[in-house]
Amino acid sequence: MNEKNNALCEKHRDMCSISRSIDKIGDSWSLLILRDLSNGLSKYEELKNSLEIPPATLSKRLSALVGEGLLTKEIYQDNPPRAKYVLTDIGKDFLPVLAIIMMWGNKHASPNGIDTQLVDSKTHKKVVPIIVDRETGKEIDFTKIIYAGGPANSPGKIKRLKERGIPLNAAK
Amino acid sequence: MNEKNNALCEKHRDMCSISRSIDKIGDSWSLLILRDLSNGLSKYEELKNSLEIPPATLSKRLSALVGEGLLTKEIYQDNPPRAKYVLTDIGKDFLPVLAIIMMWGNKHASPNGIDTQLVDSKTHKKVVPIIVDRETGKEIDFTKIIYAGGPANSPGKIKRLKERGIPLNAAK
Repeated sequence: MNEKNNALCEKHRDMCSISRSIDKIGDSWSLLILRDLSNGLSKYEELKNSLEIPPATLSKRLSALVGEGLLTKEIYQDNPPRAKYVLTDIGKDFLPVLAIIMMWGNKHASPNGIDTQLVDSKTHKKVVPIIVDRETGKEIDFTKIIYAGGPANSPGKIKRLKERGIPLNAAK
Repeated sequence: MNEKNNALCEKHRDMCSISRSIDKIGDSWSLLILRDLSNGLSKYEELKNSLEIPPATLSKRLSALVGEGLLTKEIYQDNPPRAKYVLTDIGKDFLPVLAIIMMWGNKHASPNGIDTQLVDSKTHKKVVPIIVDRETGKEIDFTKIIYAGGPANSPGKIKRLKERGIPLNAAK
């Protein structure tokens, strides 16, 4: 979420972990930074060249991602000072989001054909992610699911879920 | 991607379906709009109240999502004119991204506990998405995959992949 929207996000954070996630990750640049780190880049200069991003924007996004615990910053040279960035476990846990965005893009945003594929880093064999229900092992039809509340619903969230007739919690 | 970044995105669109996807979807507000539509809202007024978003921003994001083919706009009342928005198949295909963002948020952005869960829309039973390889059925370890190129690599992308030692295509 970019700066000018932060005031509004405040209200959403109280309600929904999707909102809180988006808020922690930042804007679209942050997603591209995470993609590059997952693909082996780490040095500030490498990221700057890869993304062709204004340096002030890159520095701000990197600091935010460090602040939110997705990256650590390591100084690898003192004079002149040079930093590299490494995904933490929290950052690594975000990588599936990028992969699922890619799958959508390969289907709906690749008019010239496929130029981005997940492959095993050792064998280079193609990996095609599908999303299944942990319980049943069946592929999830996302048009047949809804977002219910949970045990940590805030009072504001309970009010909103009731207004909309959405369950406050999952069924037993 | 918000307006001020569009010029830079131009270069990325040539390279990576993650970039093109992010570019098509728009900013964080767009993600929240898609979430609300997936949860049963459709009318402009409902979205405005749910998101507490400036009307000009909401209108702009909705128009962009319609323009990119994720939503259709339907006028359901003429006087005064009232519109509702419905996910297209392209929009529905994006729903898994929101679910995977939620999973991350439940793990890393829910300090007070869980307040957002996927449930079956009929049974209200909890659905826990896991991402498996279509071929092997095994859960994917995203720290052990990389983004290779593909048959539709642009010349710019081939150059970049070679520089980084990333495969131009998946192995046979």
